[in-house]
Amino acid sequence: MPLIVMKFGGTSVADARCISRAAGIIADAYSEGHSLVVVLSAQGDTTDDLIEKAAEINPAPSRREMDMLLSTGEQASVALMAMALEKLGLPVISLTGRQAGIRTNSEYGSARIEKVDCERIKSELDKRRIVIVAGFQGINKYDDTTTLGRGGSDTTAVALAAALHADLCRFYKDVDGVYTSDPRKIKGARLLSEITYDEMLELASLGAQVLHNRSVQMAKRYGVELEVLSSFERKPGTIVKEVLNMEKTKISGVAKDTDTARVAVMGLRDEPGIAFRVFRVLSNAKIIVDIILQSIGREGTKDISFTVARSDLDTAVAALEAQRTALGFLELDVSSDVAKVSIVGAGMMSASGIATTMFEALYDAKVNINMISTSEIKISVLVDEADADRAVAAIHRKFFED
Amino acid sequence: MPLIVMKFGGTSVADARCISRAAGIIADAYSEGHSLVVVLSAQGDTTDDLIEKAAEINPAPSRREMDMLLSTGEQASVALMAMALEKLGLPVISLTGRQAGIRTNSEYGSARIEKVDCERIKSELDKRRIVIVAGFQGINKYDDTTTLGRGGSDTTAVALAAALHADLCRFYKDVDGVYTSDPRKIKGARLLSEITYDEMLELASLGAQVLHNRSVQMAKRYGVELEVLSSFERKPGTIVKEVLNMEKTKISGVAKDTDTARVAVMGLRDEPGIAFRVFRVLSNAKIIVDIILQSIGREGTKDISFTVARSDLDTAVAALEAQRTALGFLELDVSSDVAKVSIVGAGMMSASGIATTMFEALYDAKVNINMISTSEIKISVLVDEADADRAVAAIHRKFFED
Repeated sequence: MPLIVMKFGGTSVADARCISRAAGIIADAYSEGHSLVVVLSAQGDTTDDLIEKAAEINPAPSRREMDMLLSTGEQASVALMAMALEKLGLPVISLTGRQAGIRTNSEYGSARIEKVDCERIKSELDKRRIVIVAGFQGINKYDDTTTLGRGGSDTTAVALAAALHADLCRFYKDVDGVYTSDPRKIKGARLLSEITYDEMLELASLGAQVLHNRSVQMAKRYGVELEVLSSFERKPGTIVKEVLNMEKTKISGVAKDTDTARVAVMGLRDEPGIAFRVFRVLSNAKIIVDIILQSIGREGTKDISFTVARSDLDTAVAALEAQRTALGFLELDVSSDVAKVSIVGAGMMSASGIATTMFEALYDAKVNINMISTSEIKISVLVDEADADRAVAAIHRKFFED
Repeated sequence: MPLIVMKFGGTSVADARCISRAAGIIADAYSEGHSLVVVLSAQGDTTDDLIEKAAEINPAPSRREMDMLLSTGEQASVALMAMALEKLGLPVISLTGRQAGIRTNSEYGSARIEKVDCERIKSELDKRRIVIVAGFQGINKYDDTTTLGRGGSDTTAVALAAALHADLCRFYKDVDGVYTSDPRKIKGARLLSEITYDEMLELASLGAQVLHNRSVQMAKRYGVELEVLSSFERKPGTIVKEVLNMEKTKISGVAKDTDTARVAVMGLRDEPGIAFRVFRVLSNAKIIVDIILQSIGREGTKDISFTVARSDLDTAVAALEAQRTALGFLELDVSSDVAKVSIVGAGMMSASGIATTMFEALYDAKVNINMISTSEIKISVLVDEADADRAVAAIHRKFFED
């Protein structure tokens, strides 16, 4: 019997009508003969409401008590979904994270799954029951409830799929899959039928957040095949797996990331080890640097430019200014009106001319490129923020619409 | 270190302000050097809201899933209370029913506590932590959450007090104790400083519901001393225990119960075993009979009258009518415009003239007595419902105000 893990997010179980719709999807999958484990998030705004309730009582509660409070949200969801499936006459049982065997470390609020004890789920599946599991939560060695932090319910789903050797892990979302670009902005954006884990990770980090990276990384590690599909329309979504069909397009998507800022350290002495010294200052300040560019400056000096998340910009500048004498630079040039535009594709590097085509598209659209960065499956350019949407549209047209 | 179990009901933790007030009471008790276990109900209308939510999805959900859903209410309460105490800088930990070791049978929705495993609570108390326990819930042998049904949180409190050999179990209520009569109706109603378990049980069954009988019975069985007091005012309430001080008044209270109806089976043959045959019909129909009166009828026949809860009246009449030929009675005379008025007191039977005084009060108030019933600690009379309030006032005046 093929085993499928299905995961529904908060908007897919927000109210009685949403729960009934999701129950219909589950019932159909059951009638097709699948063994089913269903992972749910808390309903709609429940988690935010609980956080607000706590804040009224104590603005800085302990994380342990916060987890005790928040875990009620998913527990309510699974009970309500079980009731909806009972109404359809299906055999079903709901389980908390603890009952589902999700064992975590003791980092309340952002716990990591250490192990999944599947005995209970397996025995329920053996009884042909649909098993509904509360996502986002587990239990630690002290027998206390923990929550998994951001992307927690997605992670629960992948962890269960890995532990149970499920055939597929389906994520029902309010989008119907992964697109070549943001479909709200790019008219010609196309739904991808397949994508690799690595491409998915790159797209997510570029702001096309469909699945949290943590769950995609876990899926890659354990070889769990994923599908992202709509909880509103019944149609195939996007499959995420290691190796794709031969015919696959070389480029998977075009993405934009505006959470970036550029810092140029100008007039550095041109001597060995200068780049190392600059980036040591930044790593000591816990700054994660993205694109890096080194160029020749005026009169035998060097300029080093890099991008950071906008929230890190002030810290980065302060850290460098504090070491101005030691590093010996002339000035810092800072800009946060920039955006990173990237194309992602597993087959990119083995195909010639991808970068050329991308740059040609930008040239045609009269978009100036500030910086360039490449990896095995990605080419990113830094452009002025004002040009970013035009850049994405131009690149998308070149690769997917022409 | 004296150990006190404190229990707060839903209205006492209804919102942030109520929780803060209750936290203040707990903090004071802690600063007096007590070890504290605090049992909480769900906030205000939470349980009703959850039931409504479930009904929208499935009008007849399984009890197991209902328990999974409802138990979130108390879990949220204990987390919020722990946060409130953390804010006051106190060491505190919240526990679910399962974590507190409440083991029950598997009657979902109305589970009975079979055993309390106190290890976790004891180890938390040893760390000088205030332990906040979710009432109303436990876990069964299948590792599934159960709820305890009506009076469940009170029962959790008494069970923990018994298992931990607590010195006292305090119930914080929206009333400030047990009164000699309903203080909203009888102006001269007096707060009792003490009352026995049996008197408490009689008063509860007479409609003066302060604590659920189930918890009082458990307290009596295990000798747990109770105190009923206000969660709004800081003053002593009513102590419930086995033996009272010598000086205690002989009568504890006057109560009225309007959930009663009278059935008279008229013209029964006066032969041995006729009463047995009538009541066997009723017990087969699962009818609980309260007051019974047998009297001589016309022409050598017998009349047997009894009272039942109003909700049982139709069933009782139908059961008797179905056996009319076998029982051989002439007619049934039925009235639901009746009420039971009772005085309760542990010292009653050892004191002479209590009944006389009660009947004198009724005579003075021109209240006609339909039936009389007495027990070790109670005298009840059945009167017309229209006379009931006047009867209670007259009796109360005679015993407590004159």
